[in-house]
Amino acid sequence: MFESAELHHSVAKSTYEREVKKLRTRLLDAQSRAVELAQFPIVLLSGGVDGGGKGEVVNLLLEWMDPRFIQVHAMGPETDEELARPAMWRFWRALPPKGKTGIFFGSWYTEPIVERVYRRMGNSEMARRLAEISRFERMLVDEGAVVVKVWLHLSKKAQKRRFEKQEANPATAWRVTPQDWKRHKRYDRFRQVSERALRETSTAEAPWNVVEATDPRYRNLTVGRTLVEAIEKRLERGKKVPLVLAAPAERPPIDKKNVIEELDLGLTLSEPKYDKRMGALQGHLNALAADKRFKDVSCAIVFEGNDAAGKGGAIRRVTRSLDARHYNVVSVAAPTEEERAQPYLWRFWRHVPKKAHLTLFDRSWYGRVLVERVEGFASEPDWMRAYREIVDFEHSLVRFGVVVVKLWLAISQEEQLRRFHLREKTSFKRFKITKEDWRNRKKWPAYERAVCDMIDRTSTELAPWQLVEANDKKWARVKVLETICSSIEKAL
Amino acid sequence: MFESAELHHSVAKSTYEREVKKLRTRLLDAQSRAVELAQFPIVLLSGGVDGGGKGEVVNLLLEWMDPRFIQVHAMGPETDEELARPAMWRFWRALPPKGKTGIFFGSWYTEPIVERVYRRMGNSEMARRLAEISRFERMLVDEGAVVVKVWLHLSKKAQKRRFEKQEANPATAWRVTPQDWKRHKRYDRFRQVSERALRETSTAEAPWNVVEATDPRYRNLTVGRTLVEAIEKRLERGKKVPLVLAAPAERPPIDKKNVIEELDLGLTLSEPKYDKRMGALQGHLNALAADKRFKDVSCAIVFEGNDAAGKGGAIRRVTRSLDARHYNVVSVAAPTEEERAQPYLWRFWRHVPKKAHLTLFDRSWYGRVLVERVEGFASEPDWMRAYREIVDFEHSLVRFGVVVVKLWLAISQEEQLRRFHLREKTSFKRFKITKEDWRNRKKWPAYERAVCDMIDRTSTELAPWQLVEANDKKWARVKVLETICSSIEKAL
Repeated sequence: MFESAELHHSVAKSTYEREVKKLRTRLLDAQSRAVELAQFPIVLLSGGVDGGGKGEVVNLLLEWMDPRFIQVHAMGPETDEELARPAMWRFWRALPPKGKTGIFFGSWYTEPIVERVYRRMGNSEMARRLAEISRFERMLVDEGAVVVKVWLHLSKKAQKRRFEKQEANPATAWRVTPQDWKRHKRYDRFRQVSERALRETSTAEAPWNVVEATDPRYRNLTVGRTLVEAIEKRLERGKKVPLVLAAPAERPPIDKKNVIEELDLGLTLSEPKYDKRMGALQGHLNALAADKRFKDVSCAIVFEGNDAAGKGGAIRRVTRSLDARHYNVVSVAAPTEEERAQPYLWRFWRHVPKKAHLTLFDRSWYGRVLVERVEGFASEPDWMRAYREIVDFEHSLVRFGVVVVKLWLAISQEEQLRRFHLREKTSFKRFKITKEDWRNRKKWPAYERAVCDMIDRTSTELAPWQLVEANDKKWARVKVLETICSSIEKAL
Repeated sequence: MFESAELHHSVAKSTYEREVKKLRTRLLDAQSRAVELAQFPIVLLSGGVDGGGKGEVVNLLLEWMDPRFIQVHAMGPETDEELARPAMWRFWRALPPKGKTGIFFGSWYTEPIVERVYRRMGNSEMARRLAEISRFERMLVDEGAVVVKVWLHLSKKAQKRRFEKQEANPATAWRVTPQDWKRHKRYDRFRQVSERALRETSTAEAPWNVVEATDPRYRNLTVGRTLVEAIEKRLERGKKVPLVLAAPAERPPIDKKNVIEELDLGLTLSEPKYDKRMGALQGHLNALAADKRFKDVSCAIVFEGNDAAGKGGAIRRVTRSLDARHYNVVSVAAPTEEERAQPYLWRFWRHVPKKAHLTLFDRSWYGRVLVERVEGFASEPDWMRAYREIVDFEHSLVRFGVVVVKLWLAISQEEQLRRFHLREKTSFKRFKITKEDWRNRKKWPAYERAVCDMIDRTSTELAPWQLVEANDKKWARVKVLETICSSIEKAL
């Protein structure tokens, strides 16, 4: 990957000055059009070898462009708030909103490369991480982002020369640390690992641009051009959705058998049994959350279900057994303006529970493949790719130690009708029933298909769906508590 | 303050059950109306003595109300992200948006009370802090919030009995820590200090409610009622602005003399002098920001000025001398939806620089007393109170070690006209000139008055305004750099 970046590329001073002038106009123009449109973010990763001049290049870009619309993220050691959440959380929170540019020094590549260099990460884990990164970047591009990845390269000799030159100059000598020399000794290993990382993550939608950094003029001009061309290309495309091929939507099975139909909604629990069991389960959950071992895990509980399936009531049975200091209920409604300026999953990443905490989601990221699919709020390519993105999201939670519990509360059409009528009669419940509920009800078969697809495509070993027969509220609430307790127990 | 809370208040079980039933309906009803309106947040502070049952009460409220619209904040030790910013930052970031309820365990009172109990804080500093808190709460109420402050009180004897009782029961024995007994010994000191804190911060708009906590039934019912009454009262008031008396707006001085008129806009700098001086200043600023002592400070730089005064150009001269990793430019535009759901200053608190960082504000919180005042976007009581709120805000930054630099770039009406015309002629600058600019220009006298008032009311010793004669861009840019350098120097 680095062959073309060891050819002693260089640019004459006069050419440089002439070209920079043109480049600056282009950059400013492209940036201001992107800002005005506010339809996509620009993500620039500045990576490469020590001494390659990552900092210098970024400083220059900020001089050439309008710094008011650029956010620079120097990703140093993780803060304790970041350490309490999955590794990608810090990058999600730093993503630029539509219209803005985010420059990352030290990105999602840093940790896997460094860990692999020092052999603290195995070969297959590295492969997994790189695949995960590719999918993450693919998601960014699918969401409309411009992703530009620049790798500043120096040959081993050139790196040595660079360090020596800096050391010779009193003004820059402090920049070369013993650490740099130590890493220089590992140059070959570093080269080998990063070569692999770049190769495996150089995709059509987000390719790596390896830039020889020996001659600063060549380097600066090349990086600037790479960036401006990517923005210009994206501007040309305008609002048009990226070309994602979606396979033809599946039909329901010929015999109409499906996981929802197979549920025995007749299951019930008597009042005395319920009281006894519920009391025991609440005590048990309380003890689990207070367990010392819970300090290192956390829990994300997703409540989905038909309208009027009893999500609210089930949530309250859970929270009742928890200490207010340790949980949070997130009620998922329409996204806010700031959320709309970000990739779809951003608003859920915001609420990922930190260690020792539980977050209960009243509806969730599954809205994409349920209501947004059925009502046509999301295009088919968008909801089709969501299945995979959601699985990635949940797996990165689980790998960090988040217990992910996903509950589908199922009721029959008849039971729903009964509850709708009941709600209309009860004054303090009347606000719970809207025209929309009636409208959704008419689309029952479409919703049922979406639910079955969702279960098939997102129920994984690490984060399985749990189906709850909810025609009988008592049965459902007990099953909800049981499922949560046993999931946490397994994780402790 | 605690006399009425040592009368052995109690409630019979039968009364309790009957009353709780009524209370729950009222609470749910009031909460759902507040959620639907989404016009004001509800802030509940749960304070009091150890053993008073702060946690139990909050858990109960979450059971009685709809937990989906409540955020609970257990303010433990500060995280490192919080430690890098002024003390109030953690509370600002946790404020509930309009429509939601935020419950704080451990609030802005905890630190001053604890520090004063252990005599690490002097008497006068305590007085200052309490006054600051009162103004902060006043601001919340002025912004529409319901602020409910509940203090759970136990007499010394009652506290002792509570601890002994808990220790006797194996299920609750773990709750009583040696720390609790240690603090029990300081009961009198704690009572004395908190009595003062409560007294000095019990205001008409946010009074303390001291509740005897000996009998849990009495305690629960009283807290619940206090909360529901406060919400109901606020709902009655509806959209009406809180009654703030604004003194009649001032007239300009009879002789028309003002700080802006007094500026010598004829000041200029020759090209060679500019080049030399600018080079030196940029190097100096770079060195200051890289200075080891800068690790403990940070810097907030406010750029305000007439339209076309050259803020953008000045900002770029500053950023050019800084490392991209250490600064951030915040361009202040219309607030986002999430920002509009919060008190006015919230969106600036978001961007408070952390230690060792600089934030440059291209326009700022002063919009409230400039454009919002002149254009009537803010009511007179709202912009009148903003002066004081802004001073408080800046002082809390300065006290934490943030260097606050406020620059007003002043140009003459003639110079502005010249620049407007120039912009219209230059194609790549055309987007910089809008109809609004021309409209604002017609209101020059109103803006000038607003500027003079702003300077008079918000130029303080800790955060003074710096007026920059900006008819000559070179002069202005050098003065901007000089001011920033000398302000940082003083702080190191």
